[in-house]
Amino acid sequence: MLKIALVGYGNIGRFALKALEAAGDMECCGVVRRSASAEGCPELSGYRIVKDPRELGSVDAAVLCVPSRLVEQTASEYLSLGISTVDSFDIHSEIFDMRSRLDAIAKANGAASIISAGWDPGSDSIVRALLRALAPEGITYTNFGPGRSMGHTVVAKSVPGVKDALSMTIPEGKGVHSRKVYVETQPGADFAAVAAAIKADPYFASDKTDVEQVADVPALNTLMHGVDIEREGVSSQTLGQEMEFRMRINNPALTGQILVGAARAVCARTPGCYTMIEVPPIDFLEGGAEELIRSLV
Amino acid sequence: MLKIALVGYGNIGRFALKALEAAGDMECCGVVRRSASAEGCPELSGYRIVKDPRELGSVDAAVLCVPSRLVEQTASEYLSLGISTVDSFDIHSEIFDMRSRLDAIAKANGAASIISAGWDPGSDSIVRALLRALAPEGITYTNFGPGRSMGHTVVAKSVPGVKDALSMTIPEGKGVHSRKVYVETQPGADFAAVAAAIKADPYFASDKTDVEQVADVPALNTLMHGVDIEREGVSSQTLGQEMEFRMRINNPALTGQILVGAARAVCARTPGCYTMIEVPPIDFLEGGAEELIRSLV
Repeated sequence: MLKIALVGYGNIGRFALKALEAAGDMECCGVVRRSASAEGCPELSGYRIVKDPRELGSVDAAVLCVPSRLVEQTASEYLSLGISTVDSFDIHSEIFDMRSRLDAIAKANGAASIISAGWDPGSDSIVRALLRALAPEGITYTNFGPGRSMGHTVVAKSVPGVKDALSMTIPEGKGVHSRKVYVETQPGADFAAVAAAIKADPYFASDKTDVEQVADVPALNTLMHGVDIEREGVSSQTLGQEMEFRMRINNPALTGQILVGAARAVCARTPGCYTMIEVPPIDFLEGGAEELIRSLV
Repeated sequence: MLKIALVGYGNIGRFALKALEAAGDMECCGVVRRSASAEGCPELSGYRIVKDPRELGSVDAAVLCVPSRLVEQTASEYLSLGISTVDSFDIHSEIFDMRSRLDAIAKANGAASIISAGWDPGSDSIVRALLRALAPEGITYTNFGPGRSMGHTVVAKSVPGVKDALSMTIPEGKGVHSRKVYVETQPGADFAAVAAAIKADPYFASDKTDVEQVADVPALNTLMHGVDIEREGVSSQTLGQEMEFRMRINNPALTGQILVGAARAVCARTPGCYTMIEVPPIDFLEGGAEELIRSLV
């Protein structure tokens, strides 16, 4: 059994624990939380909760369930301890450079890291690589949603007069997206002014944005998200090859599952830092090579 | 530039050559044909045509474009010469055992082999592995077609009274397929008897089969095929995750393209025999790691 530590226990961490519990070849050997407490989380009873990973003894890999902006610092710290890491760092433009920096730390400490192991970046990256292999020239459209956009929701919440908000990404097709923002205003706030301020924010200004006033944002409870990746391209100088990948999924449940598959894969890597497209797909899976090849190939 | 030899020059070989010509990092260093002749193939002028691969000097990899039943023998021969190979061997039930045998030969001769590098088995195998990683429990339906079934066409052609035939695989959904067989009868043949004989053949007996008489089978000219792989499964103990991959493609053009990507990947392998799910997706692609990671991850 691979010994896996969870680092952070928010939305993603909760689902990663469920994925670990469902895996037959791994076990959660502890949860690292700043509070070192299981308070309010009855499902953590029976697990070791610690403040410092060194309290857990030997660990095969750590699943970092921390916000993206804390990933590099946390990964560096664990890799420096010789503990391999996986994360779902999602700032696309910074991935390559972070990989270079973590690669050096991982190699210096005999550990490995798989970064950006969520669904986008992550499994969608594998799909994009596969579609490129099938049709090296062509156009790919990535359509997200409908689903909650974390970044846009944070921005909408920060507008003066907003009590609570939810920003949904709506796919309009061919890679174009619009925004639907549900807003609960503060008492006395002018909804028209709030809506105008949201639409004027740089996060929203370039997209078609519809703002709707609602009485209760938390009641618009959804974890569902989706993606539709379409490619039309050229294989062997033959035009018109059409391929598409789409899914409709519970967002944190899928992220937790992918992280746990990546934790399995990272334990089989030589030291260094990898993105998911640099890892053989079979390594994410539970089971022996013979059974997997017989059933999947 | 990687030096790639083509072995066999039928339908797949012609498209593999087009894919090689479109690649910026590989070149066709020769075509191995029993006839050692380019007769009837003006596009081969300018390429070396040989009977024996040893006439080509140093070769980085050979793309085997030979029928499945000749793959193992041909691969063994090339691997024994220290030449890495790729093929699109498509008999699913024999892949694992063939991989074991070729693995030993490859390792003994310092060469590598990627087998079953078509679209199914091949890229569809990567999709099935990815869907298993996203949702380890669940049901996958693989729906093929509409498209020509080579095996069923051969069987239909062999029925007495048949001059020519084409058997199409028709997807009925949820992994169920029916057959549509177009038949051109021999002069004097009884179509009703021919249709009954086709339907009674073990290849067709268990599927819904429709047989239609036509005047000219070659006029039903199609290379298009397709697949729709649907999975509904469980991620992190959360049910109802839905994902789907589908494509509509020129069949030999896609196979030729995948073989050429596999030829690139096999040059980066340590000795041994691999299926596509055992290879990092990035290795199939032209370009440096930095550009690929920045644009795809």
